[in-house]
Amino acid sequence: MPMAAASTDSQPSARQAFFRLPIISVFLSCFMLSLFPSTALASSGVGVEDAESRLKNLYPEILRDEAVARLHQLGGVSDANGYLERTFLSPASVKAGNLIREWMEDAGLRTWIDYLGNVHGRVEGRNASAEALLIGSHLDTVIDAGIFDGPLGIISAIAALKVLNSNGKLQTLRRPIEVIAFSDEEGVRFQSTFLGSAAVAGILPASALHISDKSGVTVEDVLKDNSLDITKENLLQVKYEPRSVWGYVEVHIEQGPVLERIGLPLGVVKGIAGQTRLKVTVRGSQGHAGTVPMSMRQDPMAAAAEVIVLLESLCKHPESFLSYDGHCNSSSVESLSSSLVCTVGEIATWPSASNVIPGQVTFTVDLRAIDDMGREAVIYEFSNQMYQICDRRSVSCTVERKHDANAVLCDSELSKLLKSAAYSAVTRMTGEIQGDVPVLMSGAGHDAMAMSHLTKVGMLFVRCRGGISHSPEEHVLDDDVWASGLAVLSFLEIQL
Amino acid sequence: MPMAAASTDSQPSARQAFFRLPIISVFLSCFMLSLFPSTALASSGVGVEDAESRLKNLYPEILRDEAVARLHQLGGVSDANGYLERTFLSPASVKAGNLIREWMEDAGLRTWIDYLGNVHGRVEGRNASAEALLIGSHLDTVIDAGIFDGPLGIISAIAALKVLNSNGKLQTLRRPIEVIAFSDEEGVRFQSTFLGSAAVAGILPASALHISDKSGVTVEDVLKDNSLDITKENLLQVKYEPRSVWGYVEVHIEQGPVLERIGLPLGVVKGIAGQTRLKVTVRGSQGHAGTVPMSMRQDPMAAAAEVIVLLESLCKHPESFLSYDGHCNSSSVESLSSSLVCTVGEIATWPSASNVIPGQVTFTVDLRAIDDMGREAVIYEFSNQMYQICDRRSVSCTVERKHDANAVLCDSELSKLLKSAAYSAVTRMTGEIQGDVPVLMSGAGHDAMAMSHLTKVGMLFVRCRGGISHSPEEHVLDDDVWASGLAVLSFLEIQL
Repeated sequence: MPMAAASTDSQPSARQAFFRLPIISVFLSCFMLSLFPSTALASSGVGVEDAESRLKNLYPEILRDEAVARLHQLGGVSDANGYLERTFLSPASVKAGNLIREWMEDAGLRTWIDYLGNVHGRVEGRNASAEALLIGSHLDTVIDAGIFDGPLGIISAIAALKVLNSNGKLQTLRRPIEVIAFSDEEGVRFQSTFLGSAAVAGILPASALHISDKSGVTVEDVLKDNSLDITKENLLQVKYEPRSVWGYVEVHIEQGPVLERIGLPLGVVKGIAGQTRLKVTVRGSQGHAGTVPMSMRQDPMAAAAEVIVLLESLCKHPESFLSYDGHCNSSSVESLSSSLVCTVGEIATWPSASNVIPGQVTFTVDLRAIDDMGREAVIYEFSNQMYQICDRRSVSCTVERKHDANAVLCDSELSKLLKSAAYSAVTRMTGEIQGDVPVLMSGAGHDAMAMSHLTKVGMLFVRCRGGISHSPEEHVLDDDVWASGLAVLSFLEIQL
Repeated sequence: MPMAAASTDSQPSARQAFFRLPIISVFLSCFMLSLFPSTALASSGVGVEDAESRLKNLYPEILRDEAVARLHQLGGVSDANGYLERTFLSPASVKAGNLIREWMEDAGLRTWIDYLGNVHGRVEGRNASAEALLIGSHLDTVIDAGIFDGPLGIISAIAALKVLNSNGKLQTLRRPIEVIAFSDEEGVRFQSTFLGSAAVAGILPASALHISDKSGVTVEDVLKDNSLDITKENLLQVKYEPRSVWGYVEVHIEQGPVLERIGLPLGVVKGIAGQTRLKVTVRGSQGHAGTVPMSMRQDPMAAAAEVIVLLESLCKHPESFLSYDGHCNSSSVESLSSSLVCTVGEIATWPSASNVIPGQVTFTVDLRAIDDMGREAVIYEFSNQMYQICDRRSVSCTVERKHDANAVLCDSELSKLLKSAAYSAVTRMTGEIQGDVPVLMSGAGHDAMAMSHLTKVGMLFVRCRGGISHSPEEHVLDDDVWASGLAVLSFLEIQL
């Protein structure tokens, strides 16, 4: 969205803000209605004074209006004309980093940019030598991106700290709090995700500096072009000492449809799924579509179709085979059942002519689960049953493992605190006792994956419309931006 | 295959032919072994003299050696370097036509080329005003073609007539016999099959003359460039009067694996399948492969896979649904069961990324059957069951009919005569009583489809290795070329 429109829409002047209070009440009512359509309006039984006083403690100007305006402003900082694109240390990324740095300083934070281009804003609180809480997300985007994926986590953290600052509580925090805007998570330019957070976590190898983009420019070149004096030694300096860190928290849009389906703005992430990518090749007997009787065919397309139906069935009901063969205990079966997802995204036939029985079919399998052992068990079962299908059909099947990444579990203590913060945020907004905060798996990768190598991690998910991300259609309700800022504020208040 | 190799291998001089007799005997023995591996060698119980006298009546020099040599010679006449390509009236096609014309004249036929570039060779026999028997196939090829698809039918007919000529029987035929080498069956250049035979059958519309090839040259241009003075009126002159024609016979390679599987060189075609081409589009809900739980997906790939498995099952066992719903009587169910073939040759996902649940999947369905009503019934059943699958999965499915062609049934009288000719040919070659000549469906289109609009048609299929055609791998055993020439000869002998 262009900045002009954003500022008109979401950056009211002081005078406008005064007159907008009733409008905000209407928004709040709408929000509550949409949040709990079956319950009566919380404000209906309370006086106007109570509602206004409660609203004041929700800091809508900072956590909602300003945060939304900043998201739109950042969304206008793009390397491309007409759509959003900010890759690692591109001119727009540098501009976005500087903007974020200003906002960090505006919230009372001390700021700096490290050798990987990550933007840091820190407050030491009462005890500068205590273990620090890191809160982060990424400022880079995919091509033709939405404005929330990444920035929401940075801006809601800055907004929450700004509220503490405006209340004079920033220096009373019991441990240092540091917001980090990571320079690379999407990995668009160098096809290597987590350059920023991996460096902070100390898992970025020096060899990564020599990765080239399409035009032959290396990571090192880009950093030096931006006056960041990267060397092997300086890379080590970006790394945090584990003993100096208490934990890492990340707020991110869900990028999936679960919260929207449940009808709640916030959820706690129990972990980030492990992933395996397979390439399946089925080879049969190529032939004329009109001349080979059905009974004499070795058709790899029909075989591939049967294998894909099998895959879906296994992934929908892993309990049907896992509970009987001793691969997993009952709790891992349960966690697998709720987290396992399998996708065939690409498929191709050879020679790909409508009147030729294909000689070969290849397709991809993307398999993710929160349970690594369970994921292995599914792959094992899938392969076994696939080979049986292929044998029966006299076609030859091969499976290549193209990629593997283990799951990352969020820390249970951190998750409990985040859950209670999310609960408190929604309760504060609605003025009503809430049901349980949903617990979700993250099927997508996040900076928290890299940061888990440094410290315990926790994540909050924020509802996004239709579960859509990586698209200009990506959307988070203004009230949900507010809820996420309020949840970070509630979480930080525990640190007072 | 290059001409030099062909002539060394298969065109013996008179002196060589004399010395090759024992070699031919060995070939004959091999042939019988391969034809009837479980029976004893027919020649083992007979004297050398008997075998030699029988062999003489099989005309191996003309029907086998010369025919095979001509196939290889014609296979060397190509517009491309290193592979075979002869499209409608290309320089190589013109050269091939002239060669065929020479061979027709060598067999004692009167020859001409019509306005569509078809090459004709005719003998009037005893009664020039009797209905003529036409025997034909095509001289054009696909790109990177085999040497048998088309030419085998032309060359075996010329060879059989040459035998009659050499025996002085050509003029005693009771009706005119005309061999036609059609100029276009594959339709590679103008994407419009049967230009040659459709004109002879009188079903080629004048508008076809204005079809352009990729470079903008029309059919009319090509004909005029070749000094063929095509006009609307002259096109009508190419058409034969139905009352002047007795029937049309075509010998063609099977292009399928049935005869090879049975272990016999010849089969009679009962008809050419009708064909429907469908394009199926399945639309679902596009999403991140990691973030949408299995239970919330509307995955068009999984739906398409289930539909493809359904299609295969319906086409393998049409009796399972057709026998119960009154669409067909039992004989058509039986004919459908034995002839129905269904193929998914092309499939594509959108956006085709391994980590994205596709938003859309499209695939082709090629459906052929000898029974048109049965084919409609299968399409009806397939569509019905497909929509049920799509409804259950909450995806949207659409089916477009891209192409339809009705089946052509071969004439039962002609087929009976061809069957008896094939039986006689194999019996003459083996010296043993044979089992039944197999009756096959043709799943591929042939000039006989166009000719069926003019007269009754009959076809003989010749075994080809692995059922492979439209490929340089296409192969017919020398002995099977011989068998096909002998079958045409036997068929013509009925006309004496």
